[in-house]
Amino acid sequence: MKNPKILLLIFCLAASWATAGASDRPNIIIILADDLGYGDLGCYGHPSIRTPNLDRMAQEGLRFTDFYAGQSLCTPSRAALLTGRFAVRSGMAGGPGRHVLYPNNPGGLPADEVTIASALKSKGYATCAIGKWHLGDLQDYLPTKRGFDVFFGLPYSNDSDWLDPKYRKSETMSRDPDFRKFNVPLLRGTNIIERPVNQTTLTKRYTEEALHFVEQNKKKPFFLYLAHTFPHVPLFASEKFKGKSPRGRFGDAVEELDWSVGQVLECLRKEKLEKNTLVFFTSDNGPWLEKKWNGGSASLLRDGKAGTWEGGYRVPAIARWPGKIPVGVTHEIANGLDLFTTSLLLAGVEVPRDRPVDGVDMAPILFGKGKGNREVECYFYGDQIYALRQGKYKAHFTTHNGYSKDPAVKHDPPLLFDLTEDPGEHDDVAGEHPDVVAQITKLWQHEQETMTHGKLQY
Amino acid sequence: MKNPKILLLIFCLAASWATAGASDRPNIIIILADDLGYGDLGCYGHPSIRTPNLDRMAQEGLRFTDFYAGQSLCTPSRAALLTGRFAVRSGMAGGPGRHVLYPNNPGGLPADEVTIASALKSKGYATCAIGKWHLGDLQDYLPTKRGFDVFFGLPYSNDSDWLDPKYRKSETMSRDPDFRKFNVPLLRGTNIIERPVNQTTLTKRYTEEALHFVEQNKKKPFFLYLAHTFPHVPLFASEKFKGKSPRGRFGDAVEELDWSVGQVLECLRKEKLEKNTLVFFTSDNGPWLEKKWNGGSASLLRDGKAGTWEGGYRVPAIARWPGKIPVGVTHEIANGLDLFTTSLLLAGVEVPRDRPVDGVDMAPILFGKGKGNREVECYFYGDQIYALRQGKYKAHFTTHNGYSKDPAVKHDPPLLFDLTEDPGEHDDVAGEHPDVVAQITKLWQHEQETMTHGKLQY
Repeated sequence: MKNPKILLLIFCLAASWATAGASDRPNIIIILADDLGYGDLGCYGHPSIRTPNLDRMAQEGLRFTDFYAGQSLCTPSRAALLTGRFAVRSGMAGGPGRHVLYPNNPGGLPADEVTIASALKSKGYATCAIGKWHLGDLQDYLPTKRGFDVFFGLPYSNDSDWLDPKYRKSETMSRDPDFRKFNVPLLRGTNIIERPVNQTTLTKRYTEEALHFVEQNKKKPFFLYLAHTFPHVPLFASEKFKGKSPRGRFGDAVEELDWSVGQVLECLRKEKLEKNTLVFFTSDNGPWLEKKWNGGSASLLRDGKAGTWEGGYRVPAIARWPGKIPVGVTHEIANGLDLFTTSLLLAGVEVPRDRPVDGVDMAPILFGKGKGNREVECYFYGDQIYALRQGKYKAHFTTHNGYSKDPAVKHDPPLLFDLTEDPGEHDDVAGEHPDVVAQITKLWQHEQETMTHGKLQY
Repeated sequence: MKNPKILLLIFCLAASWATAGASDRPNIIIILADDLGYGDLGCYGHPSIRTPNLDRMAQEGLRFTDFYAGQSLCTPSRAALLTGRFAVRSGMAGGPGRHVLYPNNPGGLPADEVTIASALKSKGYATCAIGKWHLGDLQDYLPTKRGFDVFFGLPYSNDSDWLDPKYRKSETMSRDPDFRKFNVPLLRGTNIIERPVNQTTLTKRYTEEALHFVEQNKKKPFFLYLAHTFPHVPLFASEKFKGKSPRGRFGDAVEELDWSVGQVLECLRKEKLEKNTLVFFTSDNGPWLEKKWNGGSASLLRDGKAGTWEGGYRVPAIARWPGKIPVGVTHEIANGLDLFTTSLLLAGVEVPRDRPVDGVDMAPILFGKGKGNREVECYFYGDQIYALRQGKYKAHFTTHNGYSKDPAVKHDPPLLFDLTEDPGEHDDVAGEHPDVVAQITKLWQHEQETMTHGKLQY
């Protein structure tokens, strides 16, 4: 074995095997913003929020125009994203009038659900959740019980727990909130390490934890779920960003989040992990319009968070993986649900066959091999399907604006919109397309009849 | 003179002089879209209109977030752009209830106005107007009487002249218009060469004329004003684009316009003129919302064409000049008026001193040397100032939605919006900032008192 040519050959083979092995099991980073609307980034047209890092990520990657959250509220959207299943299947879509999980609710994401983390962990991935969980705050429901090796973050929303109930809806809370008035805990693993958490430094601390995890795990494949607390109200930013954005507190929070994305991408570059890491940025749902200046914007889309109009469901989404994902813009339909299936397949894990999985593989969209696998988009309100998109047409069978107290309105025939010609959902064209109405109605009936409903968790 | 070293020296000096001369007097191309809204391009966040050429132009140039049309209607906006003066000064802002010039109106842009074309022509520029004029259709008011060597285009809007008055507002015209029902002429110079013009090939023919002009004039400095007819209704596109855009007829028209921009940029590249040519793309006003699916979108901005809310005045704007204009996004305030002053200064022409000029030099914004020169933005409705922006604050003294038949509403104190925190103009903050209200009110009174009004032209 002293022949240098043979040694060189072995070295080359080993190197090529290592590369192949690495690219067979890429690192996956999902960065999730909270309540960031379709129109809140520079690359989606916002005029005064400055997001140079996300804009650059879009220029170096693939920007989606028709990407949907799994549902238009925190808890069900996150359940859908991590399990690849409609939240209603795991009982995480909420009962009547129940939007999201609140502190000490007895339920949470059931233990028999497969998450991206538990699936990838089974294949040797290091797994980490940083940020907001919101899938059950009791000990048995925390991230480390659902496939994550480590967790650093909040068990629920940053406004979900308070010391003074009056404060939560006060003018002061809206204009200049004080994190000390809340009772939100910061956890490491399953232990509370700070309560109330100092929310002003949360984005910064999440970022530090994320970089630390990447640096510690650069030798093995890893899955990082970085679910930011902001721009969900109450809005905070660290000293470096506070009062700096022309868009006010909301802008400060988004601009710090943009900085954080820049830090993660820079870390990947520095650690030479860029070419073996898929980074996917998106939001859990549309803007919380009721919060006025503290809520985001859905741009030309109608309505926002909690509802079934486009503004509630359609969110910014950017995928980046230099050398693998071609640069561009895609108009294909995709959904947070698809991150489950896509991640599992990239990691070489079989998608569970013992249960319905709603996520589809995004590979054809991501790697430019053709049209996407998703033709249908389901819009749930709670555990009911209020609207359905098939191709370019969307039918509303029931409508209910965001958090409005007005009762839901049923439509028979449904309202029909051509989402590509009329993304703002202004002109009902049901009368012109009875065939389309009939087809989507049939599909809707089928979806409702065959949908499985898990035991209600809240 | 047979010494090769001296010959080489002379050659180098001559070459460097030629380059210096060229870069001292750059070519200027202004491409103006008609009724294109703030949200109608991919790079401004539209989800289904595909504008790869304009998106690339933005990535290679400077994209404006706070660029304003000179006024929110065709005629006054174009008068402002070409003269650098508020349209009211030349009598081109229209009298009560008069929005724009119509065929055979006796008036037009007065002969004593200096246009970008007449100013640059005086310094040896070749000047060309292609597309919609709309500053007077009688012989004495045509482009070739206002500084343009050549003109190829329409004297007014593509819906301004019709053979059947009922047709103009019919459902057919809205869904599937026929150019033969209109009576719009196509002119070359001052002669009608086609009537009714075949509007389906207009964008294509404008583009061919533009490329021809550039190729014919590449040896001397030139000014090209390419004022597209579309996406003003009725909407037409050539065979290659008709029925192709997911956004329908409106999308077809915008996507062909995007193609046209790509052709112009490619021609500059091919002719090696890129480094000596400023290309500026913008729109004459916001979207014509009353046209529903045939009108554009102002994204998150309020209202559209004809009004004084942001949606009427704020328009897409992209500047490109490789090597001179740094790549990026600017949030500085600028206005179509500023194209006059900027163009004259770039061409080495003195800005007229015998009259008020409202345009300011955009050089500090374009060439990255600092903040812009414009702090104040005036919003006219007809010949009255309805609103005023100073820095980030905008005060509405009178409001009137676009083409609404509701009477105008006066506000005392004015409505006040922080346009950077609240670009959608939702939250009146006048009560919180009496000092700002007082200051802008004073400025508004001063502007009104000192504004010069030219003889009304229509």
